[in-house]
Formats: sequence, C-alpha cells, structure tokens
Amino acid sequence: MKNAVGRDIPDSILTDGREVFQGNNYRDGLLYQKPGPTVRAHVKPQASKLVVSIREAVQLCGIKDGMTVSFHHHFREGDYIANIVMKEIAELGIKNITIAASSMGAAHDPIAKMIEDGIVTGLQTSGIRGKMGEAVSHGKLKTPCILRSHGGRVRAIESGEVHIDVAFIGAPTSDEYGNARGKGGKSDCGGLSYSMVDAKFADKVVVVTDKLVDFPNFPPSIQAVDVDYVIVVEEIGNPKKIATKAARLTQDPRELMMAQECVRIMAATPYFKDGFSFQAGAGGPTLAVIRFMEPVMRERGIKMKWAIGGITGPMVNLLEKGLIENIVDAQDFDIESVKSLHTNQNHYEISTSQYANPMNKGAFVNRLDFVALAALEIDTSFNVNVVTGSDGVLMGAPGGHPDASAGAKCAIIITPLVRGRIPCVCEKVVTVATPGDSIDVLITDYGTAVNPKRQDLIDSLTEAGIKLTTIEELKNKAYSMVGPPDDVPFLDRIVAIMEARDGTILDVVRQVKPFEF
Amino acid sequence: MKNAVGRDIPDSILTDGREVFQGNNYRDGLLYQKPGPTVRAHVKPQASKLVVSIREAVQLCGIKDGMTVSFHHHFREGDYIANIVMKEIAELGIKNITIAASSMGAAHDPIAKMIEDGIVTGLQTSGIRGKMGEAVSHGKLKTPCILRSHGGRVRAIESGEVHIDVAFIGAPTSDEYGNARGKGGKSDCGGLSYSMVDAKFADKVVVVTDKLVDFPNFPPSIQAVDVDYVIVVEEIGNPKKIATKAARLTQDPRELMMAQECVRIMAATPYFKDGFSFQAGAGGPTLAVIRFMEPVMRERGIKMKWAIGGITGPMVNLLEKGLIENIVDAQDFDIESVKSLHTNQNHYEISTSQYANPMNKGAFVNRLDFVALAALEIDTSFNVNVVTGSDGVLMGAPGGHPDASAGAKCAIIITPLVRGRIPCVCEKVVTVATPGDSIDVLITDYGTAVNPKRQDLIDSLTEAGIKLTTIEELKNKAYSMVGPPDDVPFLDRIVAIMEARDGTILDVVRQVKPFEF
Repeated sequence: MKNAVGRDIPDSILTDGREVFQGNNYRDGLLYQKPGPTVRAHVKPQASKLVVSIREAVQLCGIKDGMTVSFHHHFREGDYIANIVMKEIAELGIKNITIAASSMGAAHDPIAKMIEDGIVTGLQTSGIRGKMGEAVSHGKLKTPCILRSHGGRVRAIESGEVHIDVAFIGAPTSDEYGNARGKGGKSDCGGLSYSMVDAKFADKVVVVTDKLVDFPNFPPSIQAVDVDYVIVVEEIGNPKKIATKAARLTQDPRELMMAQECVRIMAATPYFKDGFSFQAGAGGPTLAVIRFMEPVMRERGIKMKWAIGGITGPMVNLLEKGLIENIVDAQDFDIESVKSLHTNQNHYEISTSQYANPMNKGAFVNRLDFVALAALEIDTSFNVNVVTGSDGVLMGAPGGHPDASAGAKCAIIITPLVRGRIPCVCEKVVTVATPGDSIDVLITDYGTAVNPKRQDLIDSLTEAGIKLTTIEELKNKAYSMVGPPDDVPFLDRIVAIMEARDGTILDVVRQVKPFEF
Repeated sequence: MKNAVGRDIPDSILTDGREVFQGNNYRDGLLYQKPGPTVRAHVKPQASKLVVSIREAVQLCGIKDGMTVSFHHHFREGDYIANIVMKEIAELGIKNITIAASSMGAAHDPIAKMIEDGIVTGLQTSGIRGKMGEAVSHGKLKTPCILRSHGGRVRAIESGEVHIDVAFIGAPTSDEYGNARGKGGKSDCGGLSYSMVDAKFADKVVVVTDKLVDFPNFPPSIQAVDVDYVIVVEEIGNPKKIATKAARLTQDPRELMMAQECVRIMAATPYFKDGFSFQAGAGGPTLAVIRFMEPVMRERGIKMKWAIGGITGPMVNLLEKGLIENIVDAQDFDIESVKSLHTNQNHYEISTSQYANPMNKGAFVNRLDFVALAALEIDTSFNVNVVTGSDGVLMGAPGGHPDASAGAKCAIIITPLVRGRIPCVCEKVVTVATPGDSIDVLITDYGTAVNPKRQDLIDSLTEAGIKLTTIEELKNKAYSMVGPPDDVPFLDRIVAIMEARDGTILDVVRQVKPFEF
C-alpha cells in the first residue's frame, strides 16, 4: 500500500494495527490509553537495592528468553553498558532478546555477533551504525529492526507499542537507592533524558554506575522511586568518548558559506524576531550557523527565548552572552554543554518526551521557530534520508531530525550538493526518514530551494533579495556533476522498518545484495 | 473481620479486593500493574491550549455524571479553585461527582451543600474539616468518604484504585502550553508536589492560573506534556492564606518543655549522628524541636544530611546556617520555605510519590531517621488518631503522619496529656490513622513512654539517664485528671473509611448520633 510519501509498504508488515504514513498530523487528537509497568512495591524501610554484579541483576530481574531490555545512548561512542549487560545475558544462555535502545553505535560492535547467534533477535533503535548496521542490512537479524526518531521512541513506549521488561540505565553517579544523575562522576554525560521514559515504563529498572554517592543524589534525572537495583561497576564507559571536547568551528569554506546563507535566510523570515526559538544539529555547518547568528542578533537587537536539542558549546556560548534566555536540553554533545547544564541556572534538562514525543499533550518541538539540520540525501519531494548510506547499508540515525522538522515553522536542511561521487540532492532518496512535508528550505553550496508548499516563505525571501532556485534544478546540477545514482541492489527481504514519529510506517529498508564481481 | 490494630472491619466494605490492615509491611514485594490514563495526542505544532473559562474547560473535558475530578491543597485555606470549578459543574447540572483531593479544608465549606444536593456523592481526601467534615460525619455523603495519607493517595492513583477523569491544577504561574509552577505569581505556594501524580495519571489535565507567563515557564512542577487546557482566572486564591507568615515559636512553657525533651531523646538514640535525616510536623512543639536541635548539633559537631516533609521557616533557617545539607520538599507551610525552595540550590521540590508512596520502588520516608509529630489522641497500643475529634466528627487529616511514622527509625509523638477536658492518651482512640506499630516514642508534659517493642530504644534512653514511664501510666494519669472519655455515640452507618497507606483498611468512621437533650 502506498503511503503519503509515495513508498510502497507491503501488506505483510501492516499487522497489529500498523498503518502506513498518512501525513504529519494524521494522528492529531487521537485518544489512546497509556500502558503501565508491572512494578514491585518497596514498602520496607531501609531495604537495600545494591547488588554485587550485572549477573546478579540479570537474575534478580528474571530476564529470560524473549524479553525486551533497554539502553540509552548518553555515553555515545564511549558506552560500555550495553555490551557488559548483553555479555552476561549471553553467558547465562538467554536468547531471543529484543534490544530497545535510544540509539546504538560502533561502540556496540560486539553485539553484532549476538545477532548472528540468535541471542539478539529484535532491535529497536534510532541510530544503527558499524557492525550492527551491517549485520542487520545483511539480513542477520531474525525480525525487522524498527527505526524510530527520538520522539517516536518515547511515543512507542508511552503508547504501549513497546514494552520494556528491564531497563539498564548507565549513570555517572547514583546513590544506593537509585537516584541517578549525569553529574559528579568520572565521566559526566550531562542529562539522562533518553532514559526517563524507560525508568517510568519498564517493569524493572537497574541503575549501573561507576560512582556511588551519598543519598540523596539530587536533583536526580532518574528517580529512586522507579529503580529496583543499583550496581557499581569498574567503568561505565570511556570518558574521552562520552563527552568530547568542544566542537571546533569548521574551516571548510563551502560549509561556512552555507552556514552564512542559512543565517541570511532565517533573518529574512518573519520568525527571526525577539523571542524566537531554535534548534541546530551537531554537524559542522549547523554549528557554524549558531556562531554566525550572533552578529545578526546583535544588529537587530533581538534575543532567542529558548534553544533546544542536542546542545553544544556554541549554543552555551550564546547563553552565557545573554543572547539566549533558556536552553532546554535533552542531550549534551560536548564537555561545555555538560558543564553548562550543571552550572547555568537557565540551562534545563528535559525528558525526551518533553522534547519531541508527538503523541503526548504537546512537545517542545511543536513550538520551534527554526531548526537547521544536515542530511545524507534529500529528494525532489524534500524527503530526507539520514539512515542508509549510498550502498543501502544502515549507518545513521533519524534522531531528532523528523521531530524538529515536523514541529518547526521553518525547517532548514544544509547539505553540499554532492559528497564525493554521490549526489546529495536526488530524485528519490534510498530511505525516507523525514517526510518532505516537514522540510521548508534546502541550502546547498550551489543554491537554495524552498519547498513550493511554502509560498509565504518564497515571498519573504524573494522580497529580502535572496535568490532562490528549485530543488529540481539542484538535482539536475548534482546529476550533471556526478551522474544520477545507480539504484541500490536490494533483495526482497525487509530488514528494517522506518516508523514515522507517530508510529505509522514511513518506509522499509531491504536486505542489501552482496556485491558480485 | 478484625484487623492488625484490633478494629472490626465489616465484611460489607471488603469488596473489590479490599483487605483489612495486616501490618505495615504486609504488601512489601507485591507485584502490581500501574494503570495508564487515556490521553489525547497533541501532534499539531502551535496548537493553543488556552480556553476562556472554567465552564469551557469543564465542557471540553466532557465532564459528566459519575466522573471523578481532582484538586490539590497547596493553597491550603486560601484555595479558590475547588469551589469555582465545582460551582460550574453544579451549574451545568452535572451530578454524582467524586472529588479526589489531596486535602480539603474550611475553604471548601461551599461544597458541603453540594454533598447534601447529590452533586458530590464521593469524596477521597486526606484532610477533611469544617462544614464538609460535618456533612460527611452526619451521613450526608452518598458513599463512604475515603481517607488516605499523602503517600496512600499517590499509591491509590498509581495502582489504579482511583482513576481521575479530570484534574484541575491551580498554579501561581503557567505558560500557555501548561508548564506550571508555584513561583512567579501573585500568590506563590512553593512546589506543586501533590499535583504531580494527578498530571501523570488523569485523563484530562487543566491548569488554572492567575498569572500567565512567557513560554517556557521553567523548570516546571507540572509539565506541558501532560496538560490539555490552560485557563487564566482573576484569582486562584487568597494570597494571605496560601503562604502564611513564618510560624512564630511557641511561648507555651509546656510545649517548650516537651520540645526540649524531644531533642534530649533524639540525642540519646544511636541515630543522632552526622548525616541523620529528619521530619517535623508544623505544630508549635515540633517547630520548637527544630530550633532546640541547633545547639545540640553544634555541640556534637554534626549536621543533618536531609530534612523532609512539610517545610517551615525554622527548617530553612538551619539549611541557611549549613546545619542541614539538603531539604527535600513536598509542601511549603510559610513564606520563608516558599522563598527558599525557589532560591536555595540545596532545597529541592519532590513529588508526593517520592516523598511517601509506600508502593513505589522506595520513597524518602523509608530512609528517615527521625520524625516528630503531633496527635489528637494516642492509645495504649500507640495507635494515633489525627482524624476525628472527641465528638467523633471528622476534623483532621492523616497527611504524612502514617507515612513518616512507618518509615522513620524513630517516630516520636508529642502531645499534652490532656487538652481541656479531653485525655490525649487513652485506652482506645476513636479512629486509628497511624498504627501503633509505627510509633516508637510518646512525649507528654507528664512524662515519656517508649513503645515496648523498642527495647533497644528503652535501653539507649535509660543508659543516657532519661527517665521513662509507660503509656499505661500516662493514660491512668490522664484519666485521673479528667476522667475516662465517654464513648462517642455513633450510629451504625459507615461514613468514612480510613485506609492504611498500603490500601488495606485500618479503620472505619461511623455516622455521629445527633445530640439529644
């Protein structure tokens, strides 16, 4: 059945009430019942939650074949937690496990083997990279991997689509009762926003830390009232990869030019006024956008009311200069943002539900003025791929991309026209992660195009003297430079389902065909 | 059927899985499934939640006969919200409403008439005073009123015993998206801890404020993700009664003497050491306890790790002096505590679930060292009544009394031996609100008794040279002064059920017999 972005979704996966994507606001107003976890009452005063090992926790939680366990990705490529937990599960002979992670990366390469061995047979995640991406793309996972945006993951849990049996929450600090924070440890990660929904909806919740602190560890990101067990391990991760040094401003002249253009375009819209709101991705050009905004904001005498999203040093810098009034923070990308979250009174941690869940009673992204984001590819319907590489292999993450794009009044994609021999503007993206309806402006190093549905924006920009092109012209230019892309040779089998943020099906990813020489 | 505090609980109310009280830790380890509210997805960007009137909100929420609506008592005797909402409900001709409030007081006298008129036919609350107490005690409410401790209320909601259709949450400030706080308005109340559970578990959530502030109103006690509608009214309450001036230290020599004795006793237990935790009620003697602790703490060179509970100026004073490290706050009783919550970095707002829910995975009260509380009466089994007056009429509130007493290692009751012609230590309290098993020490102006089950405490205190008496001797002394109390003339009909904090039945309150002259 064809969905609203023109993708053919096989009936075979339209089971259990699943529907195809029918537009961004299709489920607005939907009434649904939230699920509740099955929890154990801790009535007794002074009862301890400390257990001596991951293995003991796995056993106490009663993890068995077929269960779903969850992890967060606040430790990014420095995460040890998912691996050490899965190792114990594997050694106990448990199989058929579904991993429901907020994201997984190359840090989790060891788990690829568990996919091949049938220990892990289900995977739900935003990001999927490295060997796990390859394993899934080559058809090793027994069931289709489910890819969701950050908001979509919370929606899936809060609406009962996913039930987590046991959540393992790595935390830089915890007290023995389970009040856990991203602060005060060997490797602070800032907030623990992604785990908040796990803590509230999983049956069992295990906090894993490498620094036990005095009770109460306050204010907690994860509350003791939701935690069954606390374990102290040697190391939760590699601190160098958990919070990296501040991102350096890109020196690439193409990227700088696109960033300048982005600011020029933002400034030409009616939304660039005192009290505006903004999100930027963590890539080179979007970080540069934040810096280039400063002189324009000063010139106009305006301030940003709030910034949101994955937070970085450049954003913190504007907060400290008083050009941003508040930062609402669901993830910290560098040491500067980690520090700021814990010291600046106007820098607040929020849950990923507050950030982006499309089916709660109103997320922050709904009220965004601007978002500036990257793309692997964008097609002439403005559909964006941030999930599969040009070879069709899973190697990215929708993350907050579909969420912020759907919510923002002006969603801007910044991408070079071509990368190497690959056209980034094309006829039809390999995988739709963000529907074209959500995207308003495309900025490339060869010109800017506005989504035709936004005639109001075209008018504003033209009036401001900004020269626009069309996305078809950009595609033609790209194809004239590197030629049209070959079709990716896929097999029939569906290896991943790309859910829209509201749970409908946006696209499917099929098994890649081995190269033949 | 007789329960663990010797009360005969009629089989007629042991329906729907209700059980009699079987001891404080009877439900420890119980597995239960939390319920989930039925919510409406707010997918659309920029959609407004502002409605023009309470009436419009009542209609939009679809309130109809037989539904349950909820209120909080952070505005104490200054609350206008419950009255203005119930007035609209009554005017719309809706009846058979159950009110599930965190507490109700004399501010809600107008609702007593609605009980007589059948508009309100169910009532679940901690406190019940004034005309509502009289109406219930005289049998006007169609169904038995259910009385719960603060922790018990959260437990009832989080376990599905109570389902709230619509929660009305008065808030000193809110933004138009429903991020609500107890700060920044005409009449700040501090935190909004009692409402947090309502916001998460009610189907519909309405925020009522008299000060609309810019989005985002952060950090919010009530999150926009849980809020359906926001209404701005003229006044949410009477500011003078919402946050009263700081409590004055009692000058009553008897009260001061008992407070001194309480500190002497605490100091003689093994728990009075660096890092201890403490809660005090808001009465005269217990406030004096906080002040008298200071010199002893200084002398011993120890600090309190955390204070909890309804917070007052004297507690804030110790925080500011560095003698308390953290305050965890579920309710503010005066302007000093309201201010401190919003300015002192070591003063944290917590939910009532974090504070006292006995069936989450571990509440703060579980880790209390000391609590000092008042009582209307205490009997020779150490059972405490804080609910019914000597005439049998409902006029009090279990509040956090049963919660803190059950959790604390040393729960101390301070009460004069007699009040007027009423013995406060007696053979059998009119209503058991806190089971005797939870109480460790009774301090009166005629001597101190320790619960015989605490031989360890008797030993410690005796060793410290503290002269103890027995509770029987105290009762005899009281009776010798004012005579034994007459039995309260009750009719058969049960007008209220006193639930233990875990949901079992601790006691029932029967209809009072009209006086006959």
